[in-house]
Amino acid sequence: MSSNKSKNEGALSMGPHTLAIPVELFALNRDRLVQKLKHVAEDSIVLLQGGDEISFYDTDITYNVFRQESYFMWAFGVTEAECYGAIDIKTGNAYLFIPHHPDEYAVWMGPLAQTNDFSKKYGISNVFYVEQLKEIVEKLNRKKILTLKGLNTDSGLTAKPAVFKGIEHFSVDDTILFPIIADLRVYKTHYEIKVIKYVVAVSSYAHRQIMRTVKPGQHEYQAESEFLHICYKKGGCRHVSYTCICGSGVNGAILHYGHAAAPNDDSIKNGVLCLFDMGANYFGYAADITCTFPANGKFTPDQKLIYEAVLKSNRAVHKAAKPGVSWVDMHSLANKVLLEELKRGGLLQGDITEMFNAGLGAIFQPHGLGHLMGLDVHDVGGYLSGQPQRPTQPGLSKLRTARVLQAGMVLTIEPGCYFIDPLLDKALADPVMKSFLVPDVIARFRNFGGVRIEDDVLITENGVEDLTRVPRTVEEIEAWINADNVDETKYLDEERLFTW
Amino acid sequence: MSSNKSKNEGALSMGPHTLAIPVELFALNRDRLVQKLKHVAEDSIVLLQGGDEISFYDTDITYNVFRQESYFMWAFGVTEAECYGAIDIKTGNAYLFIPHHPDEYAVWMGPLAQTNDFSKKYGISNVFYVEQLKEIVEKLNRKKILTLKGLNTDSGLTAKPAVFKGIEHFSVDDTILFPIIADLRVYKTHYEIKVIKYVVAVSSYAHRQIMRTVKPGQHEYQAESEFLHICYKKGGCRHVSYTCICGSGVNGAILHYGHAAAPNDDSIKNGVLCLFDMGANYFGYAADITCTFPANGKFTPDQKLIYEAVLKSNRAVHKAAKPGVSWVDMHSLANKVLLEELKRGGLLQGDITEMFNAGLGAIFQPHGLGHLMGLDVHDVGGYLSGQPQRPTQPGLSKLRTARVLQAGMVLTIEPGCYFIDPLLDKALADPVMKSFLVPDVIARFRNFGGVRIEDDVLITENGVEDLTRVPRTVEEIEAWINADNVDETKYLDEERLFTW
Repeated sequence: MSSNKSKNEGALSMGPHTLAIPVELFALNRDRLVQKLKHVAEDSIVLLQGGDEISFYDTDITYNVFRQESYFMWAFGVTEAECYGAIDIKTGNAYLFIPHHPDEYAVWMGPLAQTNDFSKKYGISNVFYVEQLKEIVEKLNRKKILTLKGLNTDSGLTAKPAVFKGIEHFSVDDTILFPIIADLRVYKTHYEIKVIKYVVAVSSYAHRQIMRTVKPGQHEYQAESEFLHICYKKGGCRHVSYTCICGSGVNGAILHYGHAAAPNDDSIKNGVLCLFDMGANYFGYAADITCTFPANGKFTPDQKLIYEAVLKSNRAVHKAAKPGVSWVDMHSLANKVLLEELKRGGLLQGDITEMFNAGLGAIFQPHGLGHLMGLDVHDVGGYLSGQPQRPTQPGLSKLRTARVLQAGMVLTIEPGCYFIDPLLDKALADPVMKSFLVPDVIARFRNFGGVRIEDDVLITENGVEDLTRVPRTVEEIEAWINADNVDETKYLDEERLFTW
Repeated sequence: MSSNKSKNEGALSMGPHTLAIPVELFALNRDRLVQKLKHVAEDSIVLLQGGDEISFYDTDITYNVFRQESYFMWAFGVTEAECYGAIDIKTGNAYLFIPHHPDEYAVWMGPLAQTNDFSKKYGISNVFYVEQLKEIVEKLNRKKILTLKGLNTDSGLTAKPAVFKGIEHFSVDDTILFPIIADLRVYKTHYEIKVIKYVVAVSSYAHRQIMRTVKPGQHEYQAESEFLHICYKKGGCRHVSYTCICGSGVNGAILHYGHAAAPNDDSIKNGVLCLFDMGANYFGYAADITCTFPANGKFTPDQKLIYEAVLKSNRAVHKAAKPGVSWVDMHSLANKVLLEELKRGGLLQGDITEMFNAGLGAIFQPHGLGHLMGLDVHDVGGYLSGQPQRPTQPGLSKLRTARVLQAGMVLTIEPGCYFIDPLLDKALADPVMKSFLVPDVIARFRNFGGVRIEDDVLITENGVEDLTRVPRTVEEIEAWINADNVDETKYLDEERLFTW
């Protein structure tokens, strides 16, 4: 907690030019959880454990600036490490437990924030030190402690249940909480939607600037650097939600380009497309936007062909998605529109449904159409029990959720089209798939790279609300990049007029 | 490994505007290790295990972009995760073991780099897959495998010895390697010095820009954002060596300000000092520079007093440090010069040696004078056995090494003067210490914050070579900040003329 505490009371903010997140956001989440749990386990306490700092190997620096674990963040909004949070289901009261640092800590880390400082900052009356946790839980005297254990279906890893010294003396249940809290996280509250709109606006703004500043001859990581800087300096976003993917030319076909072994270190050639997939993070909440545009500001005919095919796929989903519609159907729709456009462009031949059934969709777009987004960029709740299970067909099997859409969900819509050698080779080696390909034309695209158009959207009662604010059509993009002066107001609405 | 492999052969680089690090740097380190070990354990194999990716809790994103473990980096220079390296002491031959990714990896992560790609990139002929490790080690048929286990005296953590499936069938020694490799890391080769000069030049450049761009009314983290951006975009430094400390005003007295609970989120008031401690990282090699300057470009008389006291302390060490001199003596010298200047400034009274012995040095500068710097910002080898042990006196006990200086060491010289409430209160409550304080004058400085002047230096046969290139005197700083145009050439030498 920094020295001038007053600025931090009751809201999370990075200054007046950024969004102030009211702590009521987290209180509402807790309340929603209480409402759900009181019918199943009223005589119990929810116990969540926040994250700890992670050392850089055996050294005394950290692997990165501390970031809070997402379930804990969702329920308590606390940005400090080494905390616990409890919720008494019967009363709805929240309890926060903070680490008790030695006095010397003040010299190195700043004035020791006391329990009442945390109370004011986070709007939680009951703040204690971690060493009091056992005593307080004992006093509450509930039948059960509910801890969090469950599978993250994107990573295959398991959420780590809270533990503390003495927990073995209590009756602990680690089965009830997970499906309920994960499902609640799928539906965003009005508070959360405002935060997501903000971080998507910040990310959109940065993408817009980068479209204009990137030039052939630069290195890809220089665009990453611009993105990080704009989001942090202007938007107060200290972190991004995932490693920036800044693929130019052929690198655009590497879906997770940008990692340490392919670190956005290529030079951007004249005449290539840039596929930049980057999203800021604001107090845990994610954005996830991909823009694809020509480095030199002008699409070639082939680039226009593929770009507009993907855009048509993207827009078809925007139009069709609404409450009651299956996300699996949206993936199929996107694939089919793409295949149709590739056929129209002369790359494919034959019947669209047949080629889709043969798996050609997954040759050109090996990833899912999009995913839930929230405190995790690939947000939780994709495959909870009682929900549609993961499809098995190529491409569809990569979907991170097969849910039926409902209002309050936030998702990405991110169809793409890539020319990936091993996949094209695989298709050409398969007699059925091969019959749909026009080999000469496919050969022309071998070093093309790829196109992805990724929007962040909110599902409303009426359909899709696009939160993304970037030029999207070929004409819009070329005009945006080549204009001497740009008019930002087109991309802003009342809620997003920050003083950038 | 990115798609256009040719650019990456035999050197680590982020493009022509950045430094190309020849892989001979790492070959020389291995050779130095072999020379040392062949007298103690000729019939053995050194085995080091590189780092793995770290997940962000249970999600499918990483906590940060992967960064290699420092001992492994020192010996092999490999930037990819999940590798092992071995050195056969008898022949001096190096062996690199890389992970064997499934074919599908190519779709998501880029073309599968084969063993021969790694050979070319890193100049190591013998590259195998990790699953061949046991077989190769068996074939080498040496008496012992030497693994790395030892205490990091800054963190209290222990280097994790290499393990692989089947290691239990070999005779493993984890005692021989650590003290030898840690001691070698203390002395930098000409290759390493060039890299350190580069990353210090990048960091100096960024500090110089920020001195001019920071204005009262901005938030501290906006300067952090500028630093990260300049070092990455211009210098190719994707990481910093530690969390940026951007303390303004009273926050300058919080030694490790900037962490998640005090995240550089204050607004910079007019009339305060900025204490910005920031250092880039280039392929593992660290810089660590602190500049203190007035946010509005003009020192007040009190700020000038404290700043010049610290500068005098800093320059005294620059002048006195040379091979054969004890670092502990340098700390004491720095403290005494500071106390003398504070006395001259009217804050203290009495005999300097007496007040130093009473512990007043550690009231105003609670941290050590400086530390070894290399692949870790607080570099290893500080307190190896056979070296002078950690002193016990206040302040001196915080030194990260008590070594006698020798040519080839790289250290920081970073005296400081801070007005930290709990420490001032402690001194005022101690009858001996209190007698040296002039309470009225001390009271005037209560919300002053602090000053630190931190240089990165190389110890040469002749004394100190300062690698840092920033304005340092009050006159230089004021001129630099207020000039309409600045002349960068003053801060560049032939080796550092990059096309920024």
